[in-house]
Amino acid sequence: MLDPLRNSTWRLFLTAHTRLIARIEQNLTAAKLPPLEWYDVLFALKEAEGYRLRLSELAERVLLSRSNLTRLVDRLEKAELLRREPCPSDRRGTFAILTETGLTMQQQMWVVYSEGIADYFASHLNDDEVKTLQVIFQRLLGVAD
Amino acid sequence: MLDPLRNSTWRLFLTAHTRLIARIEQNLTAAKLPPLEWYDVLFALKEAEGYRLRLSELAERVLLSRSNLTRLVDRLEKAELLRREPCPSDRRGTFAILTETGLTMQQQMWVVYSEGIADYFASHLNDDEVKTLQVIFQRLLGVAD
Repeated sequence: MLDPLRNSTWRLFLTAHTRLIARIEQNLTAAKLPPLEWYDVLFALKEAEGYRLRLSELAERVLLSRSNLTRLVDRLEKAELLRREPCPSDRRGTFAILTETGLTMQQQMWVVYSEGIADYFASHLNDDEVKTLQVIFQRLLGVAD
Repeated sequence: MLDPLRNSTWRLFLTAHTRLIARIEQNLTAAKLPPLEWYDVLFALKEAEGYRLRLSELAERVLLSRSNLTRLVDRLEKAELLRREPCPSDRRGTFAILTETGLTMQQQMWVVYSEGIADYFASHLNDDEVKTLQVIFQRLLGVAD
């Protein structure tokens, strides 16, 4: 059963998420940079060993369905931010590999993105609140996994 | 400036959001119901006076760009969950109005959706945590507005 206060907390969670993301997207657009969706792919590849991931691994990291990821990877490849390469150990597998241009783009986007996280989120939380959020989100992720 | 703990809290916030939504979407799909995006439109219309909103008001409530909303409203109209009607006081305005079928669908979806909110979110938060989240999200919304 869902009590009204917890229901309203859920709606606040969704609304806060949507508005903060919208604010950060506005800043990226104003800086003539691509959307956050692109950043997630660039960041996942940057963090990966050899700047490369199988498309199936990439889909899992960015939490996108495989068909949506294929379209997204197409757009990033066209913009020369990544390239595809066949996977030698698996005939059906394909790697996505971050290019130099892609790495530069990730860094440029992070300047604007991290400023947004600080301005709209991080600078409004005291240390206790940050700890509480850590505990809560970790617990919820344990449940949803 | 963004310290590592607050940066990791931001990532947890995004990941928790994505995973909880994915879990609820899975439950809706399993129950052969439409996606959450549709629910947001049906709910906004249900809450509105006379079950009707101008498209511009609707776009604001569901936090979608006008062009994305038009496509979404097209799909809901085709499924007979809402109908469009010209706005008598404003020649360029259009209302979206919830149909009986739309209201029934909102109620059916809410059964599955509210169960998901309870199972993946609400039942894992104690009363103090709920209060803290309320305070934090309200504050962040004040900042992002």
